[in-house]
Amino acid sequence: MTSENLKIISLDVKDVRFPTSLGAHGSDAMHKDPDYSCAYVVLKTAKGTEGHGLTFTCGRGTEIVVAAIKSLSELVVGQTAIDIFKDFGVFWRSLTSETQLRWLGPEKGVMHLATAAIINALWDLWGKLLNKPLWRLLADLDPEHIVSCIDFRYISDVITKEEAIEILKQGQKGKEERIEKLMKEGYPAYTTQVGWMGYSQEVIIELCQKYLDMGFTAFKVKVGQNLKDDIKRLKTVRNVIGWDNKLMVDANQVWDVKQAIEWMKQLAEFKLLWIEEPTSPDDILGHAKIAKELKPLGIGVATGEMCCNRVMFKQFLQADAMQYCQIDSARIGGVNEILSVYLMAHKLGVKVCPHAGGVGLCEMVQHLQMWDYVALSGTMEDRVIEYVDQQHEHFVNPVVVENACYKVPKRAGYSTTFTPETIPKYEYPNGTEWQLMFSQGLFPDPCKHQS
Amino acid sequence: MTSENLKIISLDVKDVRFPTSLGAHGSDAMHKDPDYSCAYVVLKTAKGTEGHGLTFTCGRGTEIVVAAIKSLSELVVGQTAIDIFKDFGVFWRSLTSETQLRWLGPEKGVMHLATAAIINALWDLWGKLLNKPLWRLLADLDPEHIVSCIDFRYISDVITKEEAIEILKQGQKGKEERIEKLMKEGYPAYTTQVGWMGYSQEVIIELCQKYLDMGFTAFKVKVGQNLKDDIKRLKTVRNVIGWDNKLMVDANQVWDVKQAIEWMKQLAEFKLLWIEEPTSPDDILGHAKIAKELKPLGIGVATGEMCCNRVMFKQFLQADAMQYCQIDSARIGGVNEILSVYLMAHKLGVKVCPHAGGVGLCEMVQHLQMWDYVALSGTMEDRVIEYVDQQHEHFVNPVVVENACYKVPKRAGYSTTFTPETIPKYEYPNGTEWQLMFSQGLFPDPCKHQS
Repeated sequence: MTSENLKIISLDVKDVRFPTSLGAHGSDAMHKDPDYSCAYVVLKTAKGTEGHGLTFTCGRGTEIVVAAIKSLSELVVGQTAIDIFKDFGVFWRSLTSETQLRWLGPEKGVMHLATAAIINALWDLWGKLLNKPLWRLLADLDPEHIVSCIDFRYISDVITKEEAIEILKQGQKGKEERIEKLMKEGYPAYTTQVGWMGYSQEVIIELCQKYLDMGFTAFKVKVGQNLKDDIKRLKTVRNVIGWDNKLMVDANQVWDVKQAIEWMKQLAEFKLLWIEEPTSPDDILGHAKIAKELKPLGIGVATGEMCCNRVMFKQFLQADAMQYCQIDSARIGGVNEILSVYLMAHKLGVKVCPHAGGVGLCEMVQHLQMWDYVALSGTMEDRVIEYVDQQHEHFVNPVVVENACYKVPKRAGYSTTFTPETIPKYEYPNGTEWQLMFSQGLFPDPCKHQS
Repeated sequence: MTSENLKIISLDVKDVRFPTSLGAHGSDAMHKDPDYSCAYVVLKTAKGTEGHGLTFTCGRGTEIVVAAIKSLSELVVGQTAIDIFKDFGVFWRSLTSETQLRWLGPEKGVMHLATAAIINALWDLWGKLLNKPLWRLLADLDPEHIVSCIDFRYISDVITKEEAIEILKQGQKGKEERIEKLMKEGYPAYTTQVGWMGYSQEVIIELCQKYLDMGFTAFKVKVGQNLKDDIKRLKTVRNVIGWDNKLMVDANQVWDVKQAIEWMKQLAEFKLLWIEEPTSPDDILGHAKIAKELKPLGIGVATGEMCCNRVMFKQFLQADAMQYCQIDSARIGGVNEILSVYLMAHKLGVKVCPHAGGVGLCEMVQHLQMWDYVALSGTMEDRVIEYVDQQHEHFVNPVVVENACYKVPKRAGYSTTFTPETIPKYEYPNGTEWQLMFSQGLFPDPCKHQS
């Protein structure tokens, strides 16, 4: 591979949306009608290899992330992939600290979602160039190279470059045995599918039984809109899944701090492993207070899907504000920043249980968590990957979950390449499926709306 | 005024940029070449009254904020102003918690900058409809009405609606006397103009003398790129301004936590009132640590211009992580959210010294701080408003600073209406000044660049 061949000659971005609001799939206390969507990036090198990356969105607003990716693309197109990968941490900072753009974040919100999509596409490209799935690419990189991908700015008070290298060196021991075990058994999953807020009692019972039959032993249910309903829903779920299986609840940020504590005390009888997102995703001290109050009840605090960057994760970890670290693959700035969070969580003894479920999130986090098992923490104990059975059919290499375990992905890249049909059908607003739905009156046509 | 007359019939948004990078004005350790800019919103009611609001940006990326404002505009156009102002907190939440858009924040980054521009335009409109400058509009609203503008979600563990009303009722006492004093004396300002990073020694000396002669007694200097240069710059400044005047320094987030502490110990000899933005604006625990270490040296910690919302401010205040609260008028979600920060700061005994300097920021914060003096804290002691003498000529009612004090604004609204010439000249990229600069080769023409 010459470096000229590996020049990135184009960055294309698409607004792709799926009409999930029609079935209340993915509904919770704060997001009542999501249309699971993404901003989808295609990088192309001179020799023709492509990298595909995405960031998850909830429908409206995807066009803003697309605009941000277009603005960032000037920093990517014309660069040579091989030079980026040699000093990836420096390149990462060139995106997140661009002198004029950083005012719009820094490192949060729309700009960081855009950064994630681009960075994820670069990692997919790297995997494809080396013909390795991402987890394997990561596991094969030597500790110094992994660490060179990370921007340690603002986190050196918790972990330094040198400590990270030392930790990763420790993680090398027994790597091959773990890869073998992983290939055989896969990685444990839990399901969020049984308890979306919009589901009826009957649907919940049916789904609990379905996932039990599939071998699941950990289940998550949405709470926070109405206490009586929550109690009813949890009773129903416990009735079907019994008391030995794990049960978690998710409030999607609906409460204030005191309210979270009081509400959760009312639900403690259901033997809950964690309460997820009890309050604002920015409230580190609030989560710490909630965690302290709920600890005697055996309930941990889980959060992370809306934690906006490594500086916020650092503080959640420092303050004992999260017992389960729910890394998201597309909110913080892509794989590079995620690696730093895994390292900090490992150092401070907090378990990572990734957030997934949105478009492509399961596809991505399986790689990260498998790398963690193989080359960092060395254990799957008390760790699970969220699993939601939605939108996988749109990926060329969708996740495979069998016996409630993610099977190891074998194809090169980050598993985020859409099938050839997906974009023509679901690009918003011009895809054929959207045009059909507009004509059926299922959604307003934004083009007609504007005129 | 009938409610039909007050229907908002249009929201127009412009990308307006000033070529400040040509003179290194506004340069600091992280923003080496800002082109001070803004996304500028014009709301129009059926009866013709307009509200003008803006959010400050640094040049590139303003187009992303413009895209976000366009996406949010559907939630505004068609609403009736009078209904919004009746229950402004509810309307505010309808923007920040829109069920699909909130994933892109929530309440941070591009989406919150966009929210700020719209909300600020609404307050300007309100002032113009009542023919009152914003500070006076705020001071005249009764406590219950002020509090109804605020979304207390996520802050009730520090301040409740009821407490806020009680505090504001206390603030009514002596209001008229304070208005009289304010009218006579104005509000104290400090200058950031003497020490931008890009300025030469000679320029610094000249500027210090100039601002001294103008009556300034508080000066701020940028630090953090090179310790020796900082020491040299501070020596120069102290030589001119003497030791009785106040001197503050600003690192614009350049350090890690330990580095901030060590660096500042080296500068302590210059008798510094505060170190501003020593590290990541998201690092509450880091700022708390720095504040604790620098307290024995008499140096306070100041931050806020990039603090992204009331939940973050809440924690900075809870953790003793800021001794000076530098509210920004255009980063958090406009006046409504700013009111909540003033109330929390007041309750927890922290002084607010607003951030200003960017396009329109001085114009806006003067109103907020004057309201604080008149109707909340009741004191100007140890409080100052930042003053930078840039871009004021573009406003119809620019700030007036005399004897180092902001004079009380008397015209209706929030002082953020551009002169009729500004947009035709500085709209990016089609304004006449930009076209001229492109033709002179001073900036690349983005239209040519893309083709």
